[in-house]
Amino acid sequence: MSSDGDPVERPVDEAVPEAIAERPSELTGEISTLPPEEASKVAAEIRAVAETRGEAEGSVELLDLGSLRSKSGKTGPIPLATEPADDDALSADELRDAWPLLDLEERSDGLRVLPREDAEDYFIALAATDQAALLLHFRSGQRRQWMRLLEPDDVADVVQEAGEAHRSTLLDLLDAPTRKEVTALLAYEEDEAGGLMSTRYARLRPNMTADEAISYLRRQARDKIETIYYAYVVDPDQLLLGVVSFRDLFAADPKKIVADVMETDVVRVSDEMDQETVSRIFAEHDLTVIPVVDKDGKMKGIVTVDDIVDVVQEEATEDAQKFGGMEALDVPYLASSRRTMVRKRGRWLTILLIGEMLTATALGFFEDELIPLLALFLPLIISSGGNSGSQASTLVIRAMALGEVRAADWWLVLRREIAIGLALGALLGVFASIRVLIWGYAGAYGAHYVLIGMTVAASVIGCVLWGTLAGAMLPFVLRRFGADPANASAPLVATLVDVSGIIIYFTVAKLILSGVLL
Amino acid sequence: MSSDGDPVERPVDEAVPEAIAERPSELTGEISTLPPEEASKVAAEIRAVAETRGEAEGSVELLDLGSLRSKSGKTGPIPLATEPADDDALSADELRDAWPLLDLEERSDGLRVLPREDAEDYFIALAATDQAALLLHFRSGQRRQWMRLLEPDDVADVVQEAGEAHRSTLLDLLDAPTRKEVTALLAYEEDEAGGLMSTRYARLRPNMTADEAISYLRRQARDKIETIYYAYVVDPDQLLLGVVSFRDLFAADPKKIVADVMETDVVRVSDEMDQETVSRIFAEHDLTVIPVVDKDGKMKGIVTVDDIVDVVQEEATEDAQKFGGMEALDVPYLASSRRTMVRKRGRWLTILLIGEMLTATALGFFEDELIPLLALFLPLIISSGGNSGSQASTLVIRAMALGEVRAADWWLVLRREIAIGLALGALLGVFASIRVLIWGYAGAYGAHYVLIGMTVAASVIGCVLWGTLAGAMLPFVLRRFGADPANASAPLVATLVDVSGIIIYFTVAKLILSGVLL
Repeated sequence: MSSDGDPVERPVDEAVPEAIAERPSELTGEISTLPPEEASKVAAEIRAVAETRGEAEGSVELLDLGSLRSKSGKTGPIPLATEPADDDALSADELRDAWPLLDLEERSDGLRVLPREDAEDYFIALAATDQAALLLHFRSGQRRQWMRLLEPDDVADVVQEAGEAHRSTLLDLLDAPTRKEVTALLAYEEDEAGGLMSTRYARLRPNMTADEAISYLRRQARDKIETIYYAYVVDPDQLLLGVVSFRDLFAADPKKIVADVMETDVVRVSDEMDQETVSRIFAEHDLTVIPVVDKDGKMKGIVTVDDIVDVVQEEATEDAQKFGGMEALDVPYLASSRRTMVRKRGRWLTILLIGEMLTATALGFFEDELIPLLALFLPLIISSGGNSGSQASTLVIRAMALGEVRAADWWLVLRREIAIGLALGALLGVFASIRVLIWGYAGAYGAHYVLIGMTVAASVIGCVLWGTLAGAMLPFVLRRFGADPANASAPLVATLVDVSGIIIYFTVAKLILSGVLL
Repeated sequence: MSSDGDPVERPVDEAVPEAIAERPSELTGEISTLPPEEASKVAAEIRAVAETRGEAEGSVELLDLGSLRSKSGKTGPIPLATEPADDDALSADELRDAWPLLDLEERSDGLRVLPREDAEDYFIALAATDQAALLLHFRSGQRRQWMRLLEPDDVADVVQEAGEAHRSTLLDLLDAPTRKEVTALLAYEEDEAGGLMSTRYARLRPNMTADEAISYLRRQARDKIETIYYAYVVDPDQLLLGVVSFRDLFAADPKKIVADVMETDVVRVSDEMDQETVSRIFAEHDLTVIPVVDKDGKMKGIVTVDDIVDVVQEEATEDAQKFGGMEALDVPYLASSRRTMVRKRGRWLTILLIGEMLTATALGFFEDELIPLLALFLPLIISSGGNSGSQASTLVIRAMALGEVRAADWWLVLRREIAIGLALGALLGVFASIRVLIWGYAGAYGAHYVLIGMTVAASVIGCVLWGTLAGAMLPFVLRRFGADPANASAPLVATLVDVSGIIIYFTVAKLILSGVLL
């Protein structure tokens, strides 16, 4: 979710870890990795510092550690690379590295030990899940100051993450106007435009002059608005009339009125639009901000591109996990409990197992054909179908997610995949039969090895073609029935193809080997 | 790649399709889908309009179709929803919908038929591949004006896409200073920070006053710089001293000097840093712009967050395709030729097939145990391992891509996955043996069905545990050897686990059923 408070506006160098300032050359490599033993060292360090301060009773004060700051060279224009590292100070980067391995207590201690400004920036940049957990962990006296660091859209995410039980506890921490804003945002689903937007955008009236608009924006700049660089022109009913960039206002004749400077053809999204669609519109129009309107065209808020990065990552993660054959995890890997893991993975594994039980049933039908000589090639043949199906479904799912392939393109995809499936089947069929013929020639498969080779080749062609088509079409079918195409996972396709692969294989075997081996 | 010219600065409503302006309510739904027959209608329409203009000889003039524009209500402040659609005018949205299905000729006709401004915006927002193809398709006389629409970083992408053979043809279209800039950018790999950055950033000197800085930026705003909203303070050697936001300058005392307003702790990236790492730094620090420096700390350019959206999408697509068991496609699904598809998919399928041939070899070792009664459950058992392996590897790959799990965390992951693998194995083992016991009780598997049920249960537990561990550890192993962890694909894990699953199954069978059935 939009975990970023004031993203367009925030100075670029907030939350700069001391370590980077001291050793700028370090950032020219890869991100440093921290072995687990280092993490426990950091945790121990955090505890030690926290204890010497005598505040280990769970309170989390925002300390302004001015002395620590100046020691680490922050006042000079360019930090000297030769200055020795300050061992006392925990840097935001060290905390970030150790974060996944720390428990809640250590995390809140870590925040307390950081210089105040760094701690605030660090907290603001955290995921809503982490923010919610920390807020609930803090003593009630401390909660308010941390909560107030967050923008309304981020507060809404935190409240959503914390769950119904803590809703009023958290909302009570806010001042009345913010609480009203947050409550309005909470009416939206987390994954729609309304749940993503910020309500703090810059507003202008159409009949202001450019000059008036600039000084009006200058005043607004002191409030916490998301960006002053794009201002939205609305009428008294909040109907969106146009948009004007600060740059254009700045370049315009000061006496010109806003209505003459603004652009009126504004790409806008509905407050109920799905976030995946919003991200596609951003990409198609190359936007950095987009206004959100309700169904009457009234301005509700803005979504900025940096929130879209999170959306894109989140959707990609969800799709990847579904494609891997499980439910989306929704939290970082190391942050989810083993119990949740077993539940989210076990459910699909059980469904797949039940599906796979049909292979035993199918094989039962071919009792007469299930001779050891044919059983030898069973895994080889059915897996070729599963593998080609996995390729086809990943291609189609991803192309759908990017908007490259739409529901109506199924026929186009089918035609392509028939041709490709046949070509791939022929390729693999030849390879597989070569394997059989070589071993067969060496005497491994008895007198009829050529016929067995033909059986294997024909079965592989059939399985690959079928697997390719099943993999390519399953996402369309799922979508048609309102399910997420990403559920056409590699394991699901493999399971489908295993059962049909068995039928293909033994039917072919019956045709070719009947009267010879069978 | 960074397909966006002037992203932070471009007015939000560029490339606004007329259709949206006319029917704003339409955008409150999902993106419209276009059936293939509609696409050919659009193509026919494009051809018809292009021909009536008598310019069908392949020239692509940028026509300013002012008359079409005003007809479709673009001059009024709010377009009327009731105004009839202009049948003559092709909208950018219609073109976008039909785009994947159009050939090069139809695409360039489509651009020619669009109103000039829309056509330019449309062209700028296209992917570099498409831009390159179109530029080379245009008559040489037309190329220059299209080429000059693009920013240096986008030109560099286009030149890279067009390939070595067309490099000088395209570079010759540029004016000398731009050519120099582009050539410098071309020295970088496409997927490193230097290949992503824009060189057109706002520069300030530390001893300017805030007032001077603002008017200096105002002048720079007229040039094509990426953003005036963040300005970078450099010394005469281009050493990066700090960053200042326009908002801060604006709010500051006009007589204050820039050095006193700027922030000196700037998060920066090296010009050779991998783009995936850059995107992680953006996310960690919640940034919208990041400066790129060389190894001496000299300022080279900036990367903006909207380029990061593309990077994130691209990396997610690459990972998904690798995880699906194929090489990354690098172009949209429908844009890749069948030949490329067969090559990129066939190579991995062949490797997997060769791996899978080991199953036949493994089964050969168990000739005595490969009785039909046991062969029945073979697909069921080995697939349970493949499925759980696929889950584990997708989780670890994705967590690595998001930076949630680092190389050093392998031990942590291993411990978790042992516990989870055992739990999942037990769950599936129970289900599988129930299936065997029910059918066995009904007489399907002879007298020793209880022993067979035990064999199946123990084998499933073994396969699931082993599959989970193999899937979770393979990404670490690949990474250790410098390969992309995403190559630990569902099919690869399944293949690995198939071979070992056979060994597990028949070894267990030997132990339990020896002297009874074997």
